[in-house]
Amino acid sequence: MTESKRKIINDPVYGFITIDHPLIYDIIQHPYYQRLRRISQMALACLVYPGAMHTRLSHSLGAYHLMGLALRELQNKGAEVTEEENVAARIAILLHDIGHGPYSHTLENTIVEDVIHEDISALIMEKMNEEMDGDLDLAIRIFRGDYPKKFLHQLVSSQLDVDRMDYLNRDSFYTGVHEGVIGYDRIIKMMIVYNDELMVEEKGIHSIEKFIIARRLMYWQVYLHKTVLCAENMLIKIFIRAKELALHGEKLFASPALAFFMQQKTNGIIFAADPEYLAHFCQLDDFDILSAIKVWANHRDSVLSTLCRWLIERRLLKIKLSNNRFETMELEEMREALSKKSGLTGTALDYFIFTGTAVNRTYNVTDDNINILFKNGEIKDIASVDNALINKSVSIPIKKFYFCYPRV
Amino acid sequence: MTESKRKIINDPVYGFITIDHPLIYDIIQHPYYQRLRRISQMALACLVYPGAMHTRLSHSLGAYHLMGLALRELQNKGAEVTEEENVAARIAILLHDIGHGPYSHTLENTIVEDVIHEDISALIMEKMNEEMDGDLDLAIRIFRGDYPKKFLHQLVSSQLDVDRMDYLNRDSFYTGVHEGVIGYDRIIKMMIVYNDELMVEEKGIHSIEKFIIARRLMYWQVYLHKTVLCAENMLIKIFIRAKELALHGEKLFASPALAFFMQQKTNGIIFAADPEYLAHFCQLDDFDILSAIKVWANHRDSVLSTLCRWLIERRLLKIKLSNNRFETMELEEMREALSKKSGLTGTALDYFIFTGTAVNRTYNVTDDNINILFKNGEIKDIASVDNALINKSVSIPIKKFYFCYPRV
Amino acid sequence: MTESKRKIINDPVYGFITIDHPLIYDIIQHPYYQRLRRISQMALACLVYPGAMHTRLSHSLGAYHLMGLALRELQNKGAEVTEEENVAARIAILLHDIGHGPYSHTLENTIVEDVIHEDISALIMEKMNEEMDGDLDLAIRIFRGDYPKKFLHQLVSSQLDVDRMDYLNRDSFYTGVHEGVIGYDRIIKMMIVYNDELMVEEKGIHSIEKFIIARRLMYWQVYLHKTVLCAENMLIKIFIRAKELALHGEKLFASPALAFFMQQKTNGIIFAADPEYLAHFCQLDDFDILSAIKVWANHRDSVLSTLCRWLIERRLLKIKLSNNRFETMELEEMREALSKKSGLTGTALDYFIFTGTAVNRTYNVTDDNINILFKNGEIKDIASVDNALINKSVSIPIKKFYFCYPRV
Amino acid sequence: MTESKRKIINDPVYGFITIDHPLIYDIIQHPYYQRLRRISQMALACLVYPGAMHTRLSHSLGAYHLMGLALRELQNKGAEVTEEENVAARIAILLHDIGHGPYSHTLENTIVEDVIHEDISALIMEKMNEEMDGDLDLAIRIFRGDYPKKFLHQLVSSQLDVDRMDYLNRDSFYTGVHEGVIGYDRIIKMMIVYNDELMVEEKGIHSIEKFIIARRLMYWQVYLHKTVLCAENMLIKIFIRAKELALHGEKLFASPALAFFMQQKTNGIIFAADPEYLAHFCQLDDFDILSAIKVWANHRDSVLSTLCRWLIERRLLKIKLSNNRFETMELEEMREALSKKSGLTGTALDYFIFTGTAVNRTYNVTDDNINILFKNGEIKDIASVDNALINKSVSIPIKKFYFCYPRV
Repeated sequence: MTESKRKIINDPVYGFITIDHPLIYDIIQHPYYQRLRRISQMALACLVYPGAMHTRLSHSLGAYHLMGLALRELQNKGAEVTEEENVAARIAILLHDIGHGPYSHTLENTIVEDVIHEDISALIMEKMNEEMDGDLDLAIRIFRGDYPKKFLHQLVSSQLDVDRMDYLNRDSFYTGVHEGVIGYDRIIKMMIVYNDELMVEEKGIHSIEKFIIARRLMYWQVYLHKTVLCAENMLIKIFIRAKELALHGEKLFASPALAFFMQQKTNGIIFAADPEYLAHFCQLDDFDILSAIKVWANHRDSVLSTLCRWLIERRLLKIKLSNNRFETMELEEMREALSKKSGLTGTALDYFIFTGTAVNRTYNVTDDNINILFKNGEIKDIASVDNALINKSVSIPIKKFYFCYPRV
Repeated sequence: MTESKRKIINDPVYGFITIDHPLIYDIIQHPYYQRLRRISQMALACLVYPGAMHTRLSHSLGAYHLMGLALRELQNKGAEVTEEENVAARIAILLHDIGHGPYSHTLENTIVEDVIHEDISALIMEKMNEEMDGDLDLAIRIFRGDYPKKFLHQLVSSQLDVDRMDYLNRDSFYTGVHEGVIGYDRIIKMMIVYNDELMVEEKGIHSIEKFIIARRLMYWQVYLHKTVLCAENMLIKIFIRAKELALHGEKLFASPALAFFMQQKTNGIIFAADPEYLAHFCQLDDFDILSAIKVWANHRDSVLSTLCRWLIERRLLKIKLSNNRFETMELEEMREALSKKSGLTGTALDYFIFTGTAVNRTYNVTDDNINILFKNGEIKDIASVDNALINKSVSIPIKKFYFCYPRV
Repeated sequence: MTESKRKIINDPVYGFITIDHPLIYDIIQHPYYQRLRRISQMALACLVYPGAMHTRLSHSLGAYHLMGLALRELQNKGAEVTEEENVAARIAILLHDIGHGPYSHTLENTIVEDVIHEDISALIMEKMNEEMDGDLDLAIRIFRGDYPKKFLHQLVSSQLDVDRMDYLNRDSFYTGVHEGVIGYDRIIKMMIVYNDELMVEEKGIHSIEKFIIARRLMYWQVYLHKTVLCAENMLIKIFIRAKELALHGEKLFASPALAFFMQQKTNGIIFAADPEYLAHFCQLDDFDILSAIKVWANHRDSVLSTLCRWLIERRLLKIKLSNNRFETMELEEMREALSKKSGLTGTALDYFIFTGTAVNRTYNVTDDNINILFKNGEIKDIASVDNALINKSVSIPIKKFYFCYPRV
Repeated sequence: MTESKRKIINDPVYGFITIDHPLIYDIIQHPYYQRLRRISQMALACLVYPGAMHTRLSHSLGAYHLMGLALRELQNKGAEVTEEENVAARIAILLHDIGHGPYSHTLENTIVEDVIHEDISALIMEKMNEEMDGDLDLAIRIFRGDYPKKFLHQLVSSQLDVDRMDYLNRDSFYTGVHEGVIGYDRIIKMMIVYNDELMVEEKGIHSIEKFIIARRLMYWQVYLHKTVLCAENMLIKIFIRAKELALHGEKLFASPALAFFMQQKTNGIIFAADPEYLAHFCQLDDFDILSAIKVWANHRDSVLSTLCRWLIERRLLKIKLSNNRFETMELEEMREALSKKSGLTGTALDYFIFTGTAVNRTYNVTDDNINILFKNGEIKDIASVDNALINKSVSIPIKKFYFCYPRV
């Protein structure tokens, strides 16, 4: 008994997303892909933007949809893209985030030390490729940037990739910060391939500027919102503390997959070498994390239980943001006051009083440039066109310092 | 140190929601209310509509927002609503779903037997009222329909309440089924109070018709979508099996709160009488459930582990829908075939092969009618106006039969 | 020097509309088509819905866009549509309203008596076809329903044509009556061709119901809104009076094209026979009409000038709507009162005091049915499916009586 | 018999706009205000963006709506605004464009020489004020910036006024250039009054940046779109030619109001002194203009008739845009070629071959600054905040040169 492998998925952002190829269908059905349903796209941003509950699965489907639109547009303008390349490019973007662990970027390097999600994505793709008898070969080459038609990789990963286009759009949509909405349809209509590279037509300059500004706004207003920074730091502190306790033999409620990572420090080499690591990793998602934290809120270690309870009940630390580094004096005074009040001393205080930095750059002029193709054949970086809004001064990374401390 | 209790929350559906009263602020900060962040509004509908990840918290905030708009409109039209009543009505709607357990309606009566969420809502409100020295007295009276200004209760609960208005709108928004969108702003503009009852002005008739049709569509296309029905039945079967095993002394991974309910059968009387029940209930949310299911997918009981694995990996049972009851013959044949193939016998087969019914009525003419107030002072039920679209034939409940069975 | 005949047009409803064929490009460039820029889609509805200023040109472009989407979908599902048929069907819909005169339906049969716009459309298409050496042959056959693949004509004209889909959507959009928005994308996804006829898949039933209800709502809330009815009747009365005066030799300010039709009565036979009629007709648009009315507001005939001034200044007659015919008595009393006050007598009173009827039927079961194709191969009219919302009672035309009279 | 002076108007951009004051109701009913229905907001931009048919009336209603929202927000934050001031500020914005003539900015100074629309607005307001026994006194003071509470005038006219907010939003909406959409609701939520001046809270910085960038984009992509520039120049040339002909005694079809201005040159002094000028002006709108042009398309003066026919049929001149002034050589060659081909000589050629400049500045640092009020009490211009995107380099006006010439 066969069943149709053609499918239409409702998506609130784009309307309908079409699955029109059996290989793509099979990938979406795969448990590794289905796991992305249980990993939120925006981690704890929902504590500030309660609508933002969307998942890595819906983001990757969205990016896949945009890839299809972009490829069709480029083909209409004469770029050669074979059917096989078309499918492979769409698979590459579908799987680009497959290696994300629970709470996406926030817990990266905390539960699983020293391995970035891009590397895990690559490992998982390899594993799926084995199962699928090499059907993902081309997708993997495009993902890695190891394929002559460079624009295919640029659509997957560059400063103008469909990944960014989808997440900006989607995150705007779900947070309700409408100002982050970008004219993705217009940007795609302006794309063109030249010398196998992705370019933007001259008349798309203002749309690109707007896209870059929307991204800037989303960073400072949403992704690096001070309350979000604070909550995500609390989550990290919780796992540092919990792992510390676990490594000292303390018993902690945890699912088997989570327990595996709590009981040992990992690194990239072991992770790649021992398949058990990847197998356990692929069992992990946000549900392991939050259900554990809820139980730990009653743990006898007061540092752990306090942080957990506060996070669950949204009683977050206070946070100050500044363009300048905070004075050591101020921290010291806070520590003394907290110590006096709570009885905590030494490193225990570091879980409640700490500083950090948030950095973002509006546009990076030295990497993966967005190139404008003028009618006269000239090519210029978006930061170098006449009357550029996105000029060099905007490409300097902006760094902000933050300082978290308990409500007295 | 005091902090402002005024707050603006971004909401993707309405833009901004304003918290402008200290009592409302305190309720939202309460751990019981914060728990609603971890209870999805649409349970497993996200398996069909991947965008639909929104929570009970965002729904109740939305309904609260609509209540504010509705009260302002009614006041502009001369209805007397004191400041105290205004706050109380908004609190009543904010808390109307506070008693929902994990996966909302799906697991109602499964984890906690024999208690409906409305009763639990009432218990929780009472508990919060105690903590808050009676500040919720009026809100509770309105919630219960025990207050002379009947329209306040009707806004909380009737066929034209702000609860429905928000969930239709919100669920449409997040599923991407735009056809469920209702003209909530126009409906609110058409509301009027007459003899302390909520009515709709004559020129709002078509908007009300549209609202009722939108609801009908959402039921058949979304809430009772056959794949959603199937997934939700699987979830119920999982808990029936798990509880059965637990009551027979089988060890099951579970958070303490979940374990509490797995180890005993409850009923409404015990629940109301013994505060420990409510205390544990208020610890439960979707995370306890799904993290347990993930672990149970490796349980030695093959009925439990199979169902759990299938649900996690979205390998759902097949389902047929029909206007007529299924023949016993067909079921029997299926059972035999499955028995032969799997070795399962007797009641174990009931977990994989079963039937059920889905019922919805477009409009109920006998309860909580939507009344139209004509310019000449006449009052008519929406189903009785001239040329009514929502006529009596539409008010008959539609019943569909479904039949679930494994993919061979 | 050639120029590209590929073009992208921004459309607020659909985003981008693509002109991708030289013949289509040439049609759009034609002065007959460009005239549609100066004919409003909704005539005087803008007096109630000030946002509704869109034109026949934007509507026909929108319908053309939907035709493209529908054809692509049907082709994906296996319907055979040649490239030539595809272009012809899109041209047929592009030109379906080319014969509309000023203020669309309102002045039909008033300025140009006894000729309906469909016939004029046919005449204009023939004329363009001559100019274009027969390139429109196939489009004209499809438009006329004179082509074997019946579904092509059904997409142009039936109860589920892209004409309706666009105007409902577009008129909702521009009036701000969001309740008229239909799920055009979903409806198109549900279309299928069976035996060369257009059908809808089973799972599209609720979307079709919603579409029919949205149309019903738009009729009663917008197109037949009582103030709109009133204004449109005033416009008609103005032209009846003006033509009467002109035929009696009274001098009236008018553009040459308008003057041509003011000085003689037409009929369908002359119109078709004498090319001068069509030539003048193709010069007429809303601008001839309104600029004349503005000047007539100072005409010495007080009936004409009063009606013109009132319309320009939006001092509309009053209007009553009723399900029953108005009593002759009431009219007579009004006439006497007005006569006493204004000195007007006899037929002059008929311009200010008059009755009429507005009729609409939600769905016509006897013509151009919308057929549902069930999975089991069965075909049923949407009004005959189980639990049909659009049942026979809904297919009876609803008739409302109105009565216009001056503000005292 | 009185009638209610409360009214709700559907607006596609904001949903519902409420008229809640008798004076405001009367102003909207006034023929001077109703004239704005017949003046398009975006003049000939509809030749490029066919959806953009909206009128000055809908824009001014929209700005009035935003004024209401802004005043309510400022009052909630403690700014003192009396009921009288509230009404007056809303009237001031309602009437801010009352002096616009046909085709708004395009024909300013062409039909009526040497008078800007702001001055005409002031004259009309004075005239209405007389009729209304001084009820508009306060509104006029606010409009003129002659009232101590400076923020009221700033809301009417400054770089952050509700005029801009509405037109950016509305023009984006109707053109379909979604990238021009601004977060008007968020910007309003961030407004605050300090020392009687309008400021923006610190956390609104990014929204303001986005607003300024959206405006920049709308200028270059829409208002100064090269095809729009071209069409608007053709319209101006038509009127220069027509007036020239009329002043030489040539007979031209025109409505009486238009004829009045065709037969004489005006200036600001006569206009203000002789009430007949204003009276005729208030009769003029887009319909006088376009209906005349249609007739002139057959005028015996070939310069006039050619330009008119081309404009009506959208056969526009070609246009080149450049950052640099065009060479005289290039123009001369064009003139010679056209002269040879058409037989036109001397100044007649200037109607078909001409140059001009388009200028826009993203933000003006020297006038009407947008000030940010920081939490620590500091005030900074948006162009001076840390890491400003809107820095001084962006405030330099950008000038582009264009060159129009006939096809072949």
